Amino acid sequence: MPVSVVAVLTAKPGCGSRVIDAFREVSALVHAEPGCELYAAHLEHKGDTVIMIERWATQADLDAHATGAPLARLNELNADLLVRPYDVWFLDAVPLGDSTKGVLGPGAR
Amino acid sequence: MPVSVVAVLTAKPGCGSRVIDAFREVSALVHAEPGCELYAAHLEHKGDTVIMIERWATQADLDAHATGAPLARLNELNADLLVRPYDVWFLDAVPLGDSTKGVLGPGAR
Repeated sequence: MPVSVVAVLTAKPGCGSRVIDAFREVSALVHAEPGCELYAAHLEHKGDTVIMIERWATQADLDAHATGAPLARLNELNADLLVRPYDVWFLDAVPLGDSTKGVLGPGAR
Repeated sequence: MPVSVVAVLTAKPGCGSRVIDAFREVSALVHAEPGCELYAAHLEHKGDTVIMIERWATQADLDAHATGAPLARLNELNADLLVRPYDVWFLDAVPLGDSTKGVLGPGAR
C-alpha cells in the first residue's frame, strides 16, 4: 500500500532558496530510487518554508529511501540552513469526491 | 499562475476520522469550485492529523474558495474537533528532476 509523506523544512530567514538548491541536487537521484512515485518540492510564497510532497509505493521503499545516499546528501546540504529538524507526517491518501481532484497523480508525462 | 496549498489539521485525540468525515461532506463541493485542480485528503498513520494537499488555478480562485460556502461548512463541522487553528502554507511548485515525479498531477481519470 502506498505511503504519502509531507515534510516541512523551516529554513532560516533568507535560506529558502538554498534549501531548494539542495533538493535540486538530489531530486533526480531520489526519483530514481525504487518505489518513488512522487517527490515534489514547493516553496512558500512569503517566507522560507520548503514543503516536500512525496508518495512511495511501499513502506519498504520509504524505509530504504530513509537510509539511502540521496537523503544523507540532502541532510548534509541542509545542515546549517534550518531553524529546526524537519516536521514529517506519514499519511494514507483518503480518496474523496472527484477522482481527478481528490487524489494526487503523477505530473506531466 | 497556480497556487499550491498544504493545510495541516491537528485533531483532538481520536477525532481524526471525524475530520475526514467533514471533508467527505464538502470535498465534491470544493472540487466543483472554479479553479480547483487538486483538493486531496490525507490521514496520519499513527495519530489524528489530517493534511490537505491542494492546487488552485489562480490566486483569485483560491480567494473565492476562502470565502465560499463549502469552506464555511467545513469550518463549522470541524469547530470542536481541532487542537488549534489550521496550519496553512501557500506555495509555488518548484519542478525538479523527473517531470513525472517532481510535479503533482491530477489523480485517476
